[in-house]
Amino acid sequence: MKILLAQLNYTVGDLQGNTEKILSALDEARKERVDLIVFSELSICGYPPEDLLLEEGFVEAVELCLQKIIHASQDLMVVVGLPRKNLLGQGKPLYSSAAVIQDGSLLGFYDKWLLPTYDVFDEGRHFEPGAALPIWECMGRKFAILICEDIWEHSKGISYTHYSRDPVQELSLTQIDFLIVIAASPYHTKKIDTRIDVCQKVVQTVKCPLFLCSQVGANDQLVFDGYSLWMDAQGIVQSMAQGFAEDLKVCDLDQTNAQVFNLPSEIEEIIDALVLGVKDYFHKSGFSKACFGLSGGIDSAVVACIAVQALGKENVLALMMPSRYSTPSSFTDAKSLLERLDISYEEISIEKPFETYLTLLEPYFVGYSPDITEENLQARIRAMLLMAFSNKLGYLLLNTSNKSEMALGFTTLYGDLCGALSPISDLLKTQVYEVASFFCKKQKIIPMTILQKEPSPELRPQHKTTDSLPKYDLLDPIIYAYIEERKSAQKIAQEQQLELSFVLDLINKIHQAEYKRRQAPPGIRISQKSFREGRKIPIVQKWRSVF
Amino acid sequence: MKILLAQLNYTVGDLQGNTEKILSALDEARKERVDLIVFSELSICGYPPEDLLLEEGFVEAVELCLQKIIHASQDLMVVVGLPRKNLLGQGKPLYSSAAVIQDGSLLGFYDKWLLPTYDVFDEGRHFEPGAALPIWECMGRKFAILICEDIWEHSKGISYTHYSRDPVQELSLTQIDFLIVIAASPYHTKKIDTRIDVCQKVVQTVKCPLFLCSQVGANDQLVFDGYSLWMDAQGIVQSMAQGFAEDLKVCDLDQTNAQVFNLPSEIEEIIDALVLGVKDYFHKSGFSKACFGLSGGIDSAVVACIAVQALGKENVLALMMPSRYSTPSSFTDAKSLLERLDISYEEISIEKPFETYLTLLEPYFVGYSPDITEENLQARIRAMLLMAFSNKLGYLLLNTSNKSEMALGFTTLYGDLCGALSPISDLLKTQVYEVASFFCKKQKIIPMTILQKEPSPELRPQHKTTDSLPKYDLLDPIIYAYIEERKSAQKIAQEQQLELSFVLDLINKIHQAEYKRRQAPPGIRISQKSFREGRKIPIVQKWRSVF
Repeated sequence: MKILLAQLNYTVGDLQGNTEKILSALDEARKERVDLIVFSELSICGYPPEDLLLEEGFVEAVELCLQKIIHASQDLMVVVGLPRKNLLGQGKPLYSSAAVIQDGSLLGFYDKWLLPTYDVFDEGRHFEPGAALPIWECMGRKFAILICEDIWEHSKGISYTHYSRDPVQELSLTQIDFLIVIAASPYHTKKIDTRIDVCQKVVQTVKCPLFLCSQVGANDQLVFDGYSLWMDAQGIVQSMAQGFAEDLKVCDLDQTNAQVFNLPSEIEEIIDALVLGVKDYFHKSGFSKACFGLSGGIDSAVVACIAVQALGKENVLALMMPSRYSTPSSFTDAKSLLERLDISYEEISIEKPFETYLTLLEPYFVGYSPDITEENLQARIRAMLLMAFSNKLGYLLLNTSNKSEMALGFTTLYGDLCGALSPISDLLKTQVYEVASFFCKKQKIIPMTILQKEPSPELRPQHKTTDSLPKYDLLDPIIYAYIEERKSAQKIAQEQQLELSFVLDLINKIHQAEYKRRQAPPGIRISQKSFREGRKIPIVQKWRSVF
Repeated sequence: MKILLAQLNYTVGDLQGNTEKILSALDEARKERVDLIVFSELSICGYPPEDLLLEEGFVEAVELCLQKIIHASQDLMVVVGLPRKNLLGQGKPLYSSAAVIQDGSLLGFYDKWLLPTYDVFDEGRHFEPGAALPIWECMGRKFAILICEDIWEHSKGISYTHYSRDPVQELSLTQIDFLIVIAASPYHTKKIDTRIDVCQKVVQTVKCPLFLCSQVGANDQLVFDGYSLWMDAQGIVQSMAQGFAEDLKVCDLDQTNAQVFNLPSEIEEIIDALVLGVKDYFHKSGFSKACFGLSGGIDSAVVACIAVQALGKENVLALMMPSRYSTPSSFTDAKSLLERLDISYEEISIEKPFETYLTLLEPYFVGYSPDITEENLQARIRAMLLMAFSNKLGYLLLNTSNKSEMALGFTTLYGDLCGALSPISDLLKTQVYEVASFFCKKQKIIPMTILQKEPSPELRPQHKTTDSLPKYDLLDPIIYAYIEERKSAQKIAQEQQLELSFVLDLINKIHQAEYKRRQAPPGIRISQKSFREGRKIPIVQKWRSVF
């Protein structure tokens, strides 16, 4: 018996395009003489559809797509994910379901039991939990279907909630020959390791092989890493689809052959995720060209490398925008990077507009010393020039802020916080260095001098980042512990042997910068707790973690 | 027997400040010889606390506040809203509860049954639904407690969901003498009318008086209108607290005396909501002064009036920033408004920076005609000047975009979309006219000429809004039907007798502007469907409502 795991890259809301992908995979399955073909969670509409589910006609349009798929399912058994109506008149209006189709007929549905409503997940907003756990049959073998979160409760690995039901445990009471899991499981660093652990706990309980079909591709801030897999009843991975790429993985149940899988390193994986995130953001929204500001610093160097890998060097434009405070080394470093990247660039001094603004504002600011105002002016002039290129020539602007700056508000709103997309806004500065080091040592693109020099925004004479902030190797562990591990200031101070007042001051800065993050571009999520959708903190609030 | 409905304005996360407010109200209750004092939903932490609930130490700090309140409850029975831990080890980690306290002792809790997870509500993210419906006793009279959403299912008025349980129906099986409802029910236009309807359906079923204690005040985009009330068993409102202001309302159960309540008109109510929204945003975050760009048009005129009412005329600064395309009438209209408002202003021509940018960019844009780029440059120069005043002098910038512009993307990102807060971003342009008309006719502040002239962004010669957009009295009903009523393009075209292609084109524009709205300032919600938190639409998506 052959099962095909169709790991495809869907666009949210593109019902027609997604259905065409599904129909092509059915043809491929027939060619490969497959018995059962499996598509990922909510594949017809793409994940996450959010409030598009509430648009009038949306679910009806999904039903029409399902009819097409049923019609095209000759000689196959098909499992496909979709939203479907809850007709009971109680609870939420929809289920997140798997339709089971055989040879032109719809056999029925499995409705997802466990609906995550934490972090970036919001499934309780639209879906009612399912209650039944039907058993299906293909080629004389019995199987059940679960959807994504359904298998996670069993491993007790979710820190936000403990569901009162565990469908995996319930399945252990039934005799099945294999388990199908369809998923749309967003990437964060090394998630595949956790996912394999979770699957191993499942097969230990259900005592049969598991076939996991995942979504791949990026939708807004979420990247889906793929890695669909076949795990045998002993917990050994028999087959695994590619990471960060579409893949049609045929699994022949009668030919087991455990393989060794060479997964990329954490840094390579992050790069893969960012490249896919940028590529899908652009291509799925009909854009091909990116521009960004190149300072000679490490953040814009990394964004340049990601952009070139995602869009091709012919589609990337760098703007160098020096000021009176730019150092000659920034210029030479930037030029050296440009040569290695072989991308187009323009050089525009911001001196004239800066001088114009200073002169224009002088009469209103008599008696005030230079401060953040003049620094922000420079950052905002650069943003205006970048946006002029974007507007006139059709480039989308890539933002170059990192997570450490986003956390502490060390960034200018409407200045360096501008852009359509933030490729590295979920990377702490120390992670940016690790990625840059990879591009320097492995790929020989980023010059070593960019890695070695001291960070500086170059917005005033002899400006160093450490004028305003402690060093990043001190800062980043605090940001990580507070944001990602959700530890209190007290615990962080104790564990990292720091003064409590120092930690509190930083956490205070993080709270105060909430208003900036609320107007920041969407960023590509690579951590377990990114800003924006996954972290909902009021702007106006007075909690400061000591009471 | 006397019940005090303590309608207070809490700041989210300000556990200490909120507790002090509660303790003062207890003192007041004793002075008034009250038997039972009631505080609103989640009063100790303020509503909505969002992910602050996940901060380590937050719920423990709430427990300490509860202890203080218990300690200070001599001679009183107290009902107070708070988050509390779910210790069952199953489900979400918290309950949204009402603590019942009597004369120094904690009697127990009622845990909210129905948790809204739609529109701006996200309570399933943190809370587990309660399961018990305890009955309490005060002065020999039996009562039950429900929390906000708990009473809404009974009226079947929620379009997003139908709960499988109805605590009001269950209460009808028990004999109680009165019902306490604590709430944090966000305002939208004429919500008080709906709320009274809902309460009337409840008293019809439970057959006893109802005492509703509501939160008042604004937290980020949500305004809570107050209007706490006592409704008798016949559905007649016996007493009602003020709208949009703190109020301690003493209800003497033995002295019924139905009154006629003069509620404000829809437009007066909207103005009250916006004024409170601005005031609380500023004061709760420690700011007192606002600046904004004054164009001579209707949007900035309305924002000026709101700002002056909210912050006082001495705290408001207008910047007039004319360009080569500004008309003389804009200038005279703006000046005339400034005189009537009696606020400070500065006048800065944007000509010099505009000229500087045009010259600077000319070599890069050879062969390209003037387009949106040059228009955006002007809007962005104005934003830069406003932000310079904000940075240098400590003003928060008020944004002047309206909902029609926000919907269609007829606004410049990083230009006129800048600001800390958008007072009118949930008002359609036609509503802006209604509000302006009130400020013109009733308050004699906005000059009639501002209402009468044709709208224009004045970003190119003889620029009219109708160059780019149909008239607002045609547009606004389409935006309303699509966004608020969630109707399909087909239905809108049919009902409003328009070409389908025309409606589809506008809906397309709405989708395409999603990326701008994602970076817009928070706006004050006055409708049933505002942008941002209440409407979660992906940026990159291809659903276009015809299939």
